[in-house]
Amino acid sequence: MTEIEIRSAMARAVDEAREKNPLAPSITNTVTQDFVANAQLAVGGAAAMMYLPDECESIVKVAQAFYINMGTAMPFYEETLPRAAKACFDEKKPWVLDPVGIGMSELRTKLLLQLKEFKPSIIRGNASEIIALANLWGLITTTGGQVRGVESTEKVSAAKVAAVSLAKFTGGTVAVSGEEDLITDSKQVILCAGGSELFTKITGSGCALGGVMAVYAAVADPFIAAMAATVMFNFAGSKAAAEVNAPASFKVKFLDNLYTLRPDNISKTFRSANSLEGMFEFGLTPRVE
Amino acid sequence: MTEIEIRSAMARAVDEAREKNPLAPSITNTVTQDFVANAQLAVGGAAAMMYLPDECESIVKVAQAFYINMGTAMPFYEETLPRAAKACFDEKKPWVLDPVGIGMSELRTKLLLQLKEFKPSIIRGNASEIIALANLWGLITTTGGQVRGVESTEKVSAAKVAAVSLAKFTGGTVAVSGEEDLITDSKQVILCAGGSELFTKITGSGCALGGVMAVYAAVADPFIAAMAATVMFNFAGSKAAAEVNAPASFKVKFLDNLYTLRPDNISKTFRSANSLEGMFEFGLTPRVE
Amino acid sequence: MTEIEIRSAMARAVDEAREKNPLAPSITNTVTQDFVANAQLAVGGAAAMMYLPDECESIVKVAQAFYINMGTAMPFYEETLPRAAKACFDEKKPWVLDPVGIGMSELRTKLLLQLKEFKPSIIRGNASEIIALANLWGLITTTGGQVRGVESTEKVSAAKVAAVSLAKFTGGTVAVSGEEDLITDSKQVILCAGGSELFTKITGSGCALGGVMAVYAAVADPFIAAMAATVMFNFAGSKAAAEVNAPASFKVKFLDNLYTLRPDNISKTFRSANSLEGMFEFGLTPRVE
Repeated sequence: MTEIEIRSAMARAVDEAREKNPLAPSITNTVTQDFVANAQLAVGGAAAMMYLPDECESIVKVAQAFYINMGTAMPFYEETLPRAAKACFDEKKPWVLDPVGIGMSELRTKLLLQLKEFKPSIIRGNASEIIALANLWGLITTTGGQVRGVESTEKVSAAKVAAVSLAKFTGGTVAVSGEEDLITDSKQVILCAGGSELFTKITGSGCALGGVMAVYAAVADPFIAAMAATVMFNFAGSKAAAEVNAPASFKVKFLDNLYTLRPDNISKTFRSANSLEGMFEFGLTPRVE
Repeated sequence: MTEIEIRSAMARAVDEAREKNPLAPSITNTVTQDFVANAQLAVGGAAAMMYLPDECESIVKVAQAFYINMGTAMPFYEETLPRAAKACFDEKKPWVLDPVGIGMSELRTKLLLQLKEFKPSIIRGNASEIIALANLWGLITTTGGQVRGVESTEKVSAAKVAAVSLAKFTGGTVAVSGEEDLITDSKQVILCAGGSELFTKITGSGCALGGVMAVYAAVADPFIAAMAATVMFNFAGSKAAAEVNAPASFKVKFLDNLYTLRPDNISKTFRSANSLEGMFEFGLTPRVE
Repeated sequence: MTEIEIRSAMARAVDEAREKNPLAPSITNTVTQDFVANAQLAVGGAAAMMYLPDECESIVKVAQAFYINMGTAMPFYEETLPRAAKACFDEKKPWVLDPVGIGMSELRTKLLLQLKEFKPSIIRGNASEIIALANLWGLITTTGGQVRGVESTEKVSAAKVAAVSLAKFTGGTVAVSGEEDLITDSKQVILCAGGSELFTKITGSGCALGGVMAVYAAVADPFIAAMAATVMFNFAGSKAAAEVNAPASFKVKFLDNLYTLRPDNISKTFRSANSLEGMFEFGLTPRVE
């Protein structure tokens, strides 16, 4: 796809999410559920969180997409996660996997090995997590991918091979979040800049990004969904950081911006722009590697 | 009760909650606990959330009211919910039931059937949930009441028969949330307008409403408690929507307004009013059917 | 330590937390996790919440401190809490205990008795909780320490003997939150004023305070960590209450202030000050008893 095609497909996804209000339920960590749900609602989606396996299976039937974030695993995840992922796979509903906390326990390792066969449409994580997952699934063999709690010790660029190999395996898309974000469907690798340092000073922006990817995956293919969510987040975040300079008001402005941004905002190149020109151009021109 | 009597009883409830700080603990979903607790605190109540059955039984003894929102059910809900509801019933403490997610799993169906005998003082839900509950409890036999995740597929007016039949059965009050809100103690059916479309763009306003109804149920009868909470929410929401136009700052303003509104604000008819006159009149004159 | 020494040690802790980004994971209640994590991030720390015992043991190895808040206990806490506390003790990592909900169930009593031998570096609670814990651990024998849900029925001063006896037993520090905050390492007892009444109108400020104490405990001894967190909270809260007058915007401003405050703000006596002089002086001069 050319840059113009990507841009206009992203704009269509943003529009359609607002028109169709797709339901994208989640199994997601208890820390950031409020943020995930509010981000999904802000872009036009509908949210629902759950823990019980049969409830996941039941809601997948009426949902348009699903989001699994392994965050704060609880004992019953052992049954819930594989059954939810299998339901998405069987019902051919797009689903997003965030393998946060990979390697922290045997349960997580076991679960992530089980999820492999249900091929997530989008995998989203930081560089360390993506490298660790590609290793766990036997797609690459490297060292690296050390995770410190929920934080990455690697740069996004270091995860490029891992991301491409994961995307090749799933047939879907992989999004690596960091200072720049790398998105690949194994054929194209795109770097998106923008966003704000303040994202690292609030909890859950990665989780919320995964949730919004699920909303867009309900109305677009995984690559466009991951791109649209990333560009929306970077744009809304850049704009918020230009308006305020501390994290709690940044979060409020960011969510407000997610709600008020129009497709136009992410479909143009902004070269002719306004006082924020430099930042927007930097932030919004996906760089094709 | 006449409109004037209702209005002055609501004003007394709002006042008394601020004076007495009643404790209204909750079993409620993990997504919106922060919002529920902050809304309860904003109107003068005290909040506490819990999961363990013996802790619910123990706190019911010192609490003035209780709130059960079935939201993100976990395996141990099987024991916790019936024991908490029974404790409220035995101790004659008013309690509010939000049957969110009704029909999503066998566990929920089983639990809701068990809760029937403990007659919630207030049942709050959207139209689909209220219709589904009245069906489940054998009070009406209709089709309809399809739930899409946590969202209603029915208009509030469609739930009138279901709401009245539930209120007749429990001897309490039923509140149906929607574009207009319907509140009935089976003898009177009142429609409250107002609020804001932005409530649908933040997660948990229904949950928070249930939590605030529990606070007011500690100081007023169920009908007045449900009315007072609804009118406070609609008023605080209308006012917030007049101040800001995006969801995250709407939520901040809404909670601020809940805290700063005075009983006067909901006890007058506002006919003489200011630039917001039309909205307030529409929003705050309960329409008796 | 003299007042000047305490002030400059606090300033160093505030600085070092921003430089070193220490990881201070938590087992903490589901109501306020978002607030705890965002407060920890705002002061420069890194956050991670978890529930599984082996994950706690695994993360303690790479963490610099740990926070256990008993809040919304779930059945699996029975295994998780003692193993997490033991891991901290064995690995000599400082850890903070918030015994919220003490006495509410047999499980809590049993757990708190088990945690005794792992000697928390900092114990933080309201007056009732501190008195109840000192009683439970057999360090004092008084009546009092009645807890109403999560709220105290006692004044901070009433908990002085209990706090000193707990600090003597653990060799660490005890912080009693209230209108004034009492902090003691058993040798010194300091009262810190300041803060704002609005802290009682938002949920989780005590939890967030415990989380921030854990962050500072990673870079300072427990006494200085508890002092620094308390003074930062009181200062950021006083400042926020001078800027806004309702709880939701107070919370936003408070978190913003936590992020923007510099060590200078808490290391000077502010006698020369500005229009807020009185408040700051009151708020920031620790009173040595």
